[in-house]
Amino acid sequence: MNQPLSIPKGTRDFTPEQVSKRQYIFDTLKRIFSLYGFAPIETPAMEQLSTLLGKYGEEGDKLLFKVLNSGDFIKDISNNDWNEGNSHKLSLKICEKGLRYDLTVPFARYVVMHRNEIVFPFKRYQIQPVWRADRPQKGRYREFYQCDVDIIGTNSLIAETELLLIINNVFDALQLKYITLLNNRKILQGLAERCSLNEHFVAFTTILDKLDKIGIDAVMIELALLPVEQNILNELKNFLQQFLSLSSNSQKIQIAKSFINNEIGLKGLEELDFLVNHAKQLNIEHNIKFDILLARGLSYYTGTILEVKSSETAMGSICGGGRYDNLTGIFGLPDVSGVGMSFGADRIYDIMETLNRFPENLTQPTDVFIANFLPNIENQLIEITQQLRKNQIRADLFYDNTVKLKKQLTIAHQKKIPWVLIVGEDELQQGKYQLKNMNTGEQFLLSLTDIIEKIKKS
Amino acid sequence: MNQPLSIPKGTRDFTPEQVSKRQYIFDTLKRIFSLYGFAPIETPAMEQLSTLLGKYGEEGDKLLFKVLNSGDFIKDISNNDWNEGNSHKLSLKICEKGLRYDLTVPFARYVVMHRNEIVFPFKRYQIQPVWRADRPQKGRYREFYQCDVDIIGTNSLIAETELLLIINNVFDALQLKYITLLNNRKILQGLAERCSLNEHFVAFTTILDKLDKIGIDAVMIELALLPVEQNILNELKNFLQQFLSLSSNSQKIQIAKSFINNEIGLKGLEELDFLVNHAKQLNIEHNIKFDILLARGLSYYTGTILEVKSSETAMGSICGGGRYDNLTGIFGLPDVSGVGMSFGADRIYDIMETLNRFPENLTQPTDVFIANFLPNIENQLIEITQQLRKNQIRADLFYDNTVKLKKQLTIAHQKKIPWVLIVGEDELQQGKYQLKNMNTGEQFLLSLTDIIEKIKKS
Repeated sequence: MNQPLSIPKGTRDFTPEQVSKRQYIFDTLKRIFSLYGFAPIETPAMEQLSTLLGKYGEEGDKLLFKVLNSGDFIKDISNNDWNEGNSHKLSLKICEKGLRYDLTVPFARYVVMHRNEIVFPFKRYQIQPVWRADRPQKGRYREFYQCDVDIIGTNSLIAETELLLIINNVFDALQLKYITLLNNRKILQGLAERCSLNEHFVAFTTILDKLDKIGIDAVMIELALLPVEQNILNELKNFLQQFLSLSSNSQKIQIAKSFINNEIGLKGLEELDFLVNHAKQLNIEHNIKFDILLARGLSYYTGTILEVKSSETAMGSICGGGRYDNLTGIFGLPDVSGVGMSFGADRIYDIMETLNRFPENLTQPTDVFIANFLPNIENQLIEITQQLRKNQIRADLFYDNTVKLKKQLTIAHQKKIPWVLIVGEDELQQGKYQLKNMNTGEQFLLSLTDIIEKIKKS
Repeated sequence: MNQPLSIPKGTRDFTPEQVSKRQYIFDTLKRIFSLYGFAPIETPAMEQLSTLLGKYGEEGDKLLFKVLNSGDFIKDISNNDWNEGNSHKLSLKICEKGLRYDLTVPFARYVVMHRNEIVFPFKRYQIQPVWRADRPQKGRYREFYQCDVDIIGTNSLIAETELLLIINNVFDALQLKYITLLNNRKILQGLAERCSLNEHFVAFTTILDKLDKIGIDAVMIELALLPVEQNILNELKNFLQQFLSLSSNSQKIQIAKSFINNEIGLKGLEELDFLVNHAKQLNIEHNIKFDILLARGLSYYTGTILEVKSSETAMGSICGGGRYDNLTGIFGLPDVSGVGMSFGADRIYDIMETLNRFPENLTQPTDVFIANFLPNIENQLIEITQQLRKNQIRADLFYDNTVKLKKQLTIAHQKKIPWVLIVGEDELQQGKYQLKNMNTGEQFLLSLTDIIEKIKKS
């Protein structure tokens, strides 16, 4: 029993203060999702490995936490399996279940399994932890919460418009300044087609995505390694430099239209134009930036893609999403178009903590501490305490009357409780009690009714 | 991709209606726990296996879900390990982590790891899922929620008194009738000592615990197999028959005192007497029953034990707990006394569902559906919808204006939305809109202000 205690790396305990702050973020999200007509679902922590494998690429498969089969799992391994020494292959023989890696694949699985009871369009939100066997580092955990909101079963761009409004509502409510980067997979496809690089789409967008970090010249050098004509590259470079020099979304759309000028690209630009126009009319355009370089890795996006960043810190993406035309196709239900996004609660928490944006009263779980230092009055104290609680006052009765009052006051102070009720013998006879303000040190002799009023007003 | 989709057995998806109902139970518990001065903590889903193993008995160890080490886990297995063919032993070589089995052991681990920042007495609650590789059956799941509330760092029986008050508050709020069975581990020890069966304590209490099911004669036959004199058994039988014929708690305590009459037993009876007296003065004694047969399996209880049952259904225990003098001792922190209990949210849910005790409006996630059947007015509709949302009305805007109004009304009906807003061309000019009550079929032509008022009042 002398081994040092620990929890698995990349996981965390949450103290009362942390839980309250996290709950504040979740409650804000839930309240706003509900206002927009979204309903909550929950799925199990464990999914069949067959549901999860192959959905997140080869790298993702490696990051799945697998759950060992119960009982005599060895019986399913042959000597051959064992002698081969292939960990991945062997793991599939001894594990049938895995911890969910995100909420998107479980949602697609849910939609397919529940398709007969779902009324489409289905607007759902889901706030649950996910697990990834990633290398833990600052801001990256092996257990973290995703807060997903999706609309499935509609092609309408009004769905995207509402997502933009939700982003605005959420970060206004959390008092965080943000910028939403907006792009469309079809624009990227149009751009690739314009450069005759359709067959090198992933490489092309991956290189473009680096422009922020490595600059346009380095990007051009990397692109030149692809099978593309130099004059086209020159045109692309000109276009990108011009694009990046503009700040107006509509001007960006204009020049993109004249440069890309092919069917798929124009379709994407038209969709983006719709969103930018609606955003303008809804007074949220100033937070939106058409970013033609935004690629987002996930292969299932087919239209709008978006990413939200804090504009007060350099903490990276705090929300991301997009439209997918065939998410449930992987489970045999084709032609269900959807659009959705995921808020990164852990990163939002870190930013709010850094910028000190949490409301102050969150860290005060209890309203009043009832001191207890006389013999044989515990029943009266319990009754007083119950009266407070009946009036929705969070009241913490101290249990041990042999502890000195001074020590009890110290405990109340350490627990950050703003009021202490002191009930002495005189007070009991009078039916009035001392209410001490722990911040100012002031003390008031009041009836229970007045005490309730005073605490509620504070 | 043609394999039938499924989720792991014993786990569940929760639909929007189910999530709302479950959330209602959790919110009720949280609200009441807060009123009593409890603060929330959360711990990771995965714990080190070294934290979990050996804490739940041999049977419990088998029911732990183990998580396979990431990467090349095979490298830690020797040919000897493999050839031995011992699944349990091998599992410990390839798994370092497990899913938490309950919230008590993680809480003890938390207290020890955070002991320098915790202010004692520490009142915490924790509402999180746990996982057990149990055989799934009706009402028993492999993933289920526990709702634990514990006070650690005090010997005071006022702590138990408050737990009894919490039980009363919770089941009153949920509108469930209940009975709390109360006993004390020390009374059982006194009873065993009275029969000179101290060294057969577990066998003795296990047999007594069956009395409900098999009757007193069968219990006496089983007890006779233990090394006990027949005349003592006869006295015990007389005592138990007399005890079971009584309904008054204080009479039961009286006769137990005179029968048991040894130090440890009298100490337990005195503690129980304290609780019963306080319950009487607090008007909750009618829900409390001294049950001298109540044993509760968990070996760490040392004082009060309690179990709550629904008195309207035969669904078994819905809450259980007790006092433990040395829970953190297993992690090297001795002499920390605590008392706590766990509410079984899943069983409470099943009972409330059976008895139809959930408030009706829980199943109505959205207040109003905004129909959308005209071209080119989506901006006006979005603005109307945003006005509703700004007034805290949960509003669901339909996205696709090519769908006929009749079909849209059907969708609103299927989604159980009580109001539909119909915005036609005339209405737009007037600035008044049709508000349809989906339950009565009534329709009102109203300004937006009046619409907001009408929906809020409903």
